[in-house]
Amino acid sequence: MADNQGARVGIVIVSHVDLGAALLGAVEFILGQQQYDCCAVSINTAHDVSETVSRLNDAADRLDFGAGVLILTDMFGGNPTNIALSLLGKHHVEVVTGVNLPMLLKVFGQRTLPLDALAELARKAGSDGIVVTGKMLNARKKKDASREGQAAS
Amino acid sequence: MADNQGARVGIVIVSHVDLGAALLGAVEFILGQQQYDCCAVSINTAHDVSETVSRLNDAADRLDFGAGVLILTDMFGGNPTNIALSLLGKHHVEVVTGVNLPMLLKVFGQRTLPLDALAELARKAGSDGIVVTGKMLNARKKKDASREGQAAS
Repeated sequence: MADNQGARVGIVIVSHVDLGAALLGAVEFILGQQQYDCCAVSINTAHDVSETVSRLNDAADRLDFGAGVLILTDMFGGNPTNIALSLLGKHHVEVVTGVNLPMLLKVFGQRTLPLDALAELARKAGSDGIVVTGKMLNARKKKDASREGQAAS
Repeated sequence: MADNQGARVGIVIVSHVDLGAALLGAVEFILGQQQYDCCAVSINTAHDVSETVSRLNDAADRLDFGAGVLILTDMFGGNPTNIALSLLGKHHVEVVTGVNLPMLLKVFGQRTLPLDALAELARKAGSDGIVVTGKMLNARKKKDASREGQAAS
Protein backbone atom coordinates (compact mmCIF):
# COMPACT_ATOMS: atom_id res chain seq x y z
CA MET A 1 0.00 0.00 0.00
CA ALA A 2 1.29 3.51 -0.82
CA ASP A 3 2.91 5.25 2.09
CA ASN A 4 3.10 8.95 2.98
CA GLN A 5 6.58 9.45 1.49
CA GLY A 6 8.13 9.09 4.92
CA ALA A 7 5.72 11.34 6.84
CA ARG A 8 4.17 9.69 9.90
CA VAL A 9 0.53 10.14 10.86
CA GLY A 10 0.26 12.12 14.12
CA ILE A 11 -1.66 10.48 16.97
CA VAL A 12 -3.86 12.30 19.49
CA ILE A 13 -5.82 10.47 22.21
CA VAL A 14 -8.77 12.47 23.54
CA SER A 15 -10.42 11.13 26.69
CA HIS A 16 -12.18 11.81 29.94
CA VAL A 17 -9.79 12.76 32.76
CA ASP A 18 -6.35 11.08 32.54
CA LEU A 19 -7.27 7.95 30.54
CA GLY A 20 -5.41 9.14 27.41
CA ALA A 21 -2.20 9.79 29.35
CA ALA A 22 -2.47 6.33 30.98
CA LEU A 23 -2.95 4.69 27.56
CA LEU A 24 0.16 6.45 26.23
CA GLY A 25 1.98 5.39 29.42
CA ALA A 26 1.04 1.73 28.78
CA VAL A 27 2.19 2.02 25.14
CA GLU A 28 5.54 3.44 26.28
CA PHE A 29 5.87 0.74 28.98
CA ILE A 30 5.60 -1.89 26.21
CA LEU A 31 7.21 -0.22 23.16
CA GLY A 32 9.60 2.22 24.83
CA GLN A 33 9.47 6.01 24.76
CA GLN A 34 7.62 7.47 21.78
CA GLN A 35 8.56 10.49 19.71
CA TYR A 36 7.17 14.01 19.85
CA ASP A 37 4.43 13.19 17.31
CA CYS A 38 1.75 11.90 19.67
CA CYS A 39 -0.06 13.38 22.66
CA ALA A 40 -3.06 13.00 24.97
CA VAL A 41 -5.74 15.66 25.50
CA SER A 42 -7.85 15.37 28.65
CA ILE A 43 -11.45 16.51 29.06
CA ASN A 44 -12.17 17.35 32.68
CA THR A 45 -13.91 19.88 34.86
CA ALA A 46 -10.78 22.04 35.17
CA HIS A 47 -11.04 23.33 31.57
CA ASP A 48 -14.03 24.76 29.72
CA VAL A 49 -15.02 23.39 26.31
CA SER A 50 -13.64 26.31 24.24
CA GLU A 51 -10.22 25.90 25.87
CA THR A 52 -10.25 22.15 25.11
CA VAL A 53 -11.31 22.75 21.48
CA SER A 54 -8.42 25.21 21.19
CA ARG A 55 -5.92 22.68 22.64
CA LEU A 56 -7.17 19.99 20.26
CA ASN A 57 -6.96 22.33 17.24
CA ASP A 58 -3.39 23.19 18.22
CA ALA A 59 -2.49 19.49 18.52
CA ALA A 60 -4.03 18.71 15.09
CA ASP A 61 -1.92 21.51 13.54
CA ARG A 62 1.28 20.67 15.41
CA LEU A 63 1.19 16.89 14.71
CA ASP A 64 0.27 17.06 11.01
CA PHE A 65 3.56 16.57 9.16
CA GLY A 66 1.83 16.05 5.81
CA ALA A 67 0.16 12.71 6.57
CA GLY A 68 -2.72 13.93 8.75
CA VAL A 69 -3.64 13.12 12.34
CA LEU A 70 -5.51 10.13 13.74
CA ILE A 71 -7.64 11.14 16.74
CA LEU A 72 -8.52 8.23 19.02
CA THR A 73 -11.28 8.89 21.55
CA ASP A 74 -12.58 6.93 24.52
CA MET A 75 -16.28 6.56 23.60
CA PHE A 76 -18.83 7.53 20.97
CA GLY A 77 -21.28 10.11 22.29
CA GLY A 78 -19.02 11.49 25.01
CA ASN A 79 -17.67 15.04 25.13
CA PRO A 80 -14.15 13.98 24.03
CA THR A 81 -15.58 12.49 20.82
CA ASN A 82 -18.00 15.36 20.22
CA ILE A 83 -15.15 17.86 20.51
CA ALA A 84 -12.94 15.74 18.24
CA LEU A 85 -15.71 15.54 15.61
CA SER A 86 -15.73 19.34 15.42
CA LEU A 87 -12.30 19.08 13.71
CA LEU A 88 -13.54 16.92 10.79
CA GLY A 89 -13.43 18.92 7.57
CA LYS A 90 -11.26 21.64 9.17
CA HIS A 91 -8.09 19.55 9.55
CA HIS A 92 -6.78 16.42 7.81
CA VAL A 93 -8.01 14.13 10.59
CA GLU A 94 -9.99 10.93 11.15
CA VAL A 95 -11.63 10.06 14.46
CA VAL A 96 -11.84 6.49 15.79
CA THR A 97 -13.80 5.88 19.00
CA GLY A 98 -13.44 3.19 21.70
CA VAL A 99 -9.64 3.33 21.94
CA ASN A 100 -7.98 0.35 23.61
CA LEU A 101 -4.45 -0.99 23.93
CA PRO A 102 -4.53 -3.48 20.99
CA MET A 103 -5.64 -0.60 18.73
CA LEU A 104 -2.84 1.65 19.95
CA LEU A 105 -0.08 -0.95 19.63
CA LYS A 106 -1.12 -1.69 16.03
CA VAL A 107 -1.38 2.00 15.11
CA PHE A 108 2.02 2.88 16.62
CA GLY A 109 3.62 0.22 14.40
CA GLN A 110 2.06 1.43 11.12
CA ARG A 111 2.37 5.21 11.19
CA THR A 112 3.34 5.59 7.51
CA LEU A 113 0.08 4.12 6.19
CA PRO A 114 -2.38 6.58 4.59
CA LEU A 115 -4.69 8.08 7.22
CA ASP A 116 -7.87 6.29 6.09
CA ALA A 117 -6.10 2.91 5.97
CA LEU A 118 -4.60 3.51 9.42
CA ALA A 119 -8.05 4.36 10.81
CA GLU A 120 -9.50 1.15 9.40
CA LEU A 121 -6.55 -0.83 10.80
CA ALA A 122 -7.16 0.79 14.20
CA ARG A 123 -10.82 -0.27 14.11
CA LYS A 124 -9.98 -3.84 13.16
CA ALA A 125 -7.14 -4.25 15.69
CA GLY A 126 -9.26 -2.75 18.48
CA SER A 127 -12.19 -5.01 17.70
CA ASP A 128 -10.15 -8.18 17.08
CA GLY A 129 -8.34 -7.57 20.38
CA ILE A 130 -11.56 -8.05 22.34
CA VAL A 131 -11.87 -11.75 23.17
CA VAL A 132 -13.86 -13.73 25.77
CA THR A 133 -10.90 -15.95 26.60
CA GLY A 134 -12.42 -18.61 28.88
CA LYS A 135 -15.13 -19.34 26.32
CA MET A 136 -12.54 -19.39 23.50
CA LEU A 137 -10.18 -21.74 25.38
CA ASN A 138 -13.05 -24.11 26.26
CA ALA A 139 -14.14 -24.25 22.62
CA ARG A 140 -10.52 -24.99 21.62
CA LYS A 141 -10.25 -27.80 24.22
CA LYS A 142 -13.48 -29.40 22.97
CA LYS A 143 -12.21 -29.25 19.37
CA ASP A 144 -8.86 -30.82 20.37
CA ALA A 145 -10.66 -33.56 22.36
CA SER A 146 -12.93 -34.29 19.40
CA ARG A 147 -9.88 -34.54 17.04
CA GLU A 148 -8.10 -36.89 19.49
CA GLY A 149 -11.27 -39.01 19.78
CA GLN A 150 -11.48 -39.27 15.98
CA ALA A 151 -7.78 -40.18 15.71
CA ALA A 152 -8.14 -42.91 18.37
CA SER A 153 -11.26 -44.45 16.80
CA MET B 1 -32.66 -13.46 31.48
CA ALA B 2 -32.24 -15.02 34.93
CA ASP B 3 -30.29 -12.84 37.32
CA ASN B 4 -27.98 -13.78 40.20
CA GLN B 5 -30.69 -13.40 42.88
CA GLY B 6 -29.41 -9.95 43.72
CA ALA B 7 -25.68 -10.73 43.77
CA ARG B 8 -23.58 -8.48 41.56
CA VAL B 9 -20.69 -9.74 39.46
CA GLY B 10 -17.37 -8.37 40.78
CA ILE B 11 -15.20 -6.45 38.32
CA VAL B 12 -11.39 -6.49 38.23
CA ILE B 13 -9.38 -4.60 35.59
CA VAL B 14 -5.86 -5.99 35.11
CA SER B 15 -3.50 -3.85 33.05
CA HIS B 16 0.01 -2.61 32.42
CA VAL B 17 1.03 0.23 34.76
CA ASP B 18 -1.86 2.51 35.84
CA LEU B 19 -4.21 2.02 32.87
CA GLY B 20 -6.77 0.07 34.95
CA ALA B 21 -6.93 2.77 37.60
CA ALA B 22 -7.38 5.44 34.89
CA LEU B 23 -10.21 3.42 33.30
CA LEU B 24 -11.96 3.16 36.67
CA GLY B 25 -11.36 6.89 37.15
CA ALA B 26 -13.06 7.65 33.81
CA VAL B 27 -16.01 5.38 34.74
CA GLU B 28 -16.40 7.22 38.06
CA PHE B 29 -16.08 10.62 36.32
CA ILE B 30 -19.09 9.63 34.14
CA LEU B 31 -21.21 7.39 36.42
CA GLY B 32 -20.22 8.68 39.86
CA GLN B 33 -18.34 6.84 42.59
CA GLN B 34 -18.60 3.05 42.37
CA GLN B 35 -19.04 0.58 45.21
CA TYR B 36 -16.44 -1.59 46.90
CA ASP B 37 -17.03 -4.46 44.42
CA CYS B 38 -14.59 -3.43 41.69
CA CYS B 39 -10.85 -2.78 41.60
CA ALA B 40 -7.82 -2.36 39.35
CA VAL B 41 -4.68 -4.51 39.54
CA SER B 42 -1.54 -3.07 37.95
CA ILE B 43 1.31 -5.06 36.38
CA ASN B 44 4.55 -3.12 36.58
CA THR B 45 8.22 -3.52 37.30
CA ALA B 46 7.77 -2.75 41.02
CA HIS B 47 6.13 -6.14 41.75
CA ASP B 48 7.24 -9.63 40.79
CA VAL B 49 4.83 -12.01 39.06
CA SER B 50 4.10 -14.20 42.11
CA GLU B 51 3.09 -11.12 44.13
CA THR B 52 0.76 -9.99 41.32
CA VAL B 53 -0.79 -13.47 41.01
CA SER B 54 -1.40 -13.39 44.76
CA ARG B 55 -3.05 -9.94 44.59
CA LEU B 56 -5.27 -11.07 41.72
CA ASN B 57 -6.26 -14.28 43.55
CA ASP B 58 -7.17 -12.20 46.60
CA ALA B 59 -9.28 -9.84 44.47
CA ALA B 60 -11.10 -12.76 42.81
CA ASP B 61 -11.94 -14.17 46.27
CA ARG B 62 -12.89 -10.84 47.83
CA LEU B 63 -15.16 -9.67 44.97
CA ASP B 64 -17.03 -12.93 44.42
CA PHE B 65 -20.35 -12.47 46.24
CA GLY B 66 -21.89 -15.57 44.64
CA ALA B 67 -22.10 -14.29 41.05
CA GLY B 68 -18.43 -14.64 40.07
CA VAL B 69 -15.92 -12.06 38.89
CA LEU B 70 -15.40 -10.57 35.44
CA ILE B 71 -11.71 -9.86 34.79
CA LEU B 72 -11.11 -7.27 32.07
CA THR B 73 -7.56 -7.05 30.73
CA ASP B 74 -5.80 -4.60 28.46
CA MET B 75 -4.56 -6.92 25.69
CA PHE B 76 -4.43 -10.56 24.64
CA GLY B 77 -0.91 -11.98 24.96
CA GLY B 78 0.34 -9.49 27.53
CA ASN B 79 1.41 -10.36 31.06
CA PRO B 80 -1.80 -8.95 32.62
CA THR B 81 -3.90 -11.35 30.52
CA ASN B 82 -1.55 -14.30 31.01
CA ILE B 83 -1.72 -13.83 34.79
CA ALA B 84 -5.52 -13.45 34.66
CA LEU B 85 -5.84 -16.68 32.62
CA SER B 86 -4.09 -18.57 35.43
CA LEU B 87 -7.26 -18.03 37.51
CA LEU B 88 -9.59 -19.83 35.04
CA GLY B 89 -10.83 -23.08 36.56
CA LYS B 90 -9.64 -22.05 40.05
CA HIS B 91 -12.16 -19.25 40.63
CA HIS B 92 -15.58 -18.46 39.16
CA VAL B 93 -14.17 -15.95 36.68
CA GLU B 94 -14.27 -15.06 33.00
CA VAL B 95 -11.55 -13.01 31.28
CA VAL B 96 -12.29 -10.49 28.51
CA THR B 97 -9.33 -8.79 26.78
CA GLY B 98 -9.06 -5.38 25.07
CA VAL B 99 -10.94 -3.42 27.73
CA ASN B 100 -12.19 0.01 26.64
CA LEU B 101 -14.60 2.59 28.05
CA PRO B 102 -17.76 1.52 26.10
CA MET B 103 -17.24 -2.02 27.46
CA LEU B 104 -16.88 -0.78 31.03
CA LEU B 105 -19.90 1.54 30.94
CA LYS B 106 -22.10 -1.30 29.65
CA VAL B 107 -20.76 -3.80 32.20
CA PHE B 108 -21.21 -1.42 35.16
CA GLY B 109 -24.89 -1.06 34.23
CA GLN B 110 -25.63 -4.80 34.03
CA ARG B 111 -23.91 -6.36 37.04
CA THR B 112 -26.74 -8.77 37.93
CA LEU B 113 -26.52 -10.68 34.62
CA PRO B 114 -25.03 -14.19 34.77
CA LEU B 115 -21.23 -14.06 34.37
CA ASP B 116 -21.10 -15.65 30.91
CA ALA B 117 -23.83 -13.32 29.58
CA LEU B 118 -22.07 -10.30 31.08
CA ALA B 119 -18.79 -11.35 29.42
CA GLU B 120 -20.52 -11.63 26.04
CA LEU B 121 -22.18 -8.24 26.57
CA ALA B 122 -18.76 -6.76 27.41
CA ARG B 123 -17.30 -8.13 24.16
CA LYS B 124 -20.16 -6.80 22.07
CA ALA B 125 -20.24 -3.35 23.70
CA GLY B 126 -16.46 -3.00 23.44
CA SER B 127 -16.46 -3.98 19.78
CA ASP B 128 -19.57 -1.98 18.79
CA GLY B 129 -18.07 1.07 20.51
CA ILE B 130 -15.19 1.16 18.01
CA VAL B 131 -16.28 3.33 15.08
CA VAL B 132 -14.39 5.18 12.31
CA THR B 133 -16.57 8.27 12.67
CA GLY B 134 -15.52 10.44 9.70
CA LYS B 135 -16.11 7.51 7.32
CA MET B 136 -19.45 6.74 8.99
CA LEU B 137 -20.66 10.36 8.87
CA ASN B 138 -19.64 10.68 5.19
CA ALA B 139 -21.56 7.50 4.33
CA ARG B 140 -24.59 8.87 6.20
CA LYS B 141 -24.39 12.22 4.34
CA LYS B 142 -24.23 10.44 0.96
CA LYS B 143 -27.27 8.32 1.91
CA ASP B 144 -29.23 11.41 3.01
CA ALA B 145 -28.27 13.27 -0.20
CA SER B 146 -29.35 10.28 -2.29
CA ARG B 147 -32.73 10.15 -0.46
CA GLU B 148 -33.24 13.90 -0.97
CA GLY B 149 -32.36 13.52 -4.65
CA GLN B 150 -34.92 10.73 -5.06
CA ALA B 151 -37.59 12.76 -3.20
CA ALA B 152 -36.96 15.80 -5.44
CA SER B 153 -37.11 13.81 -8.71
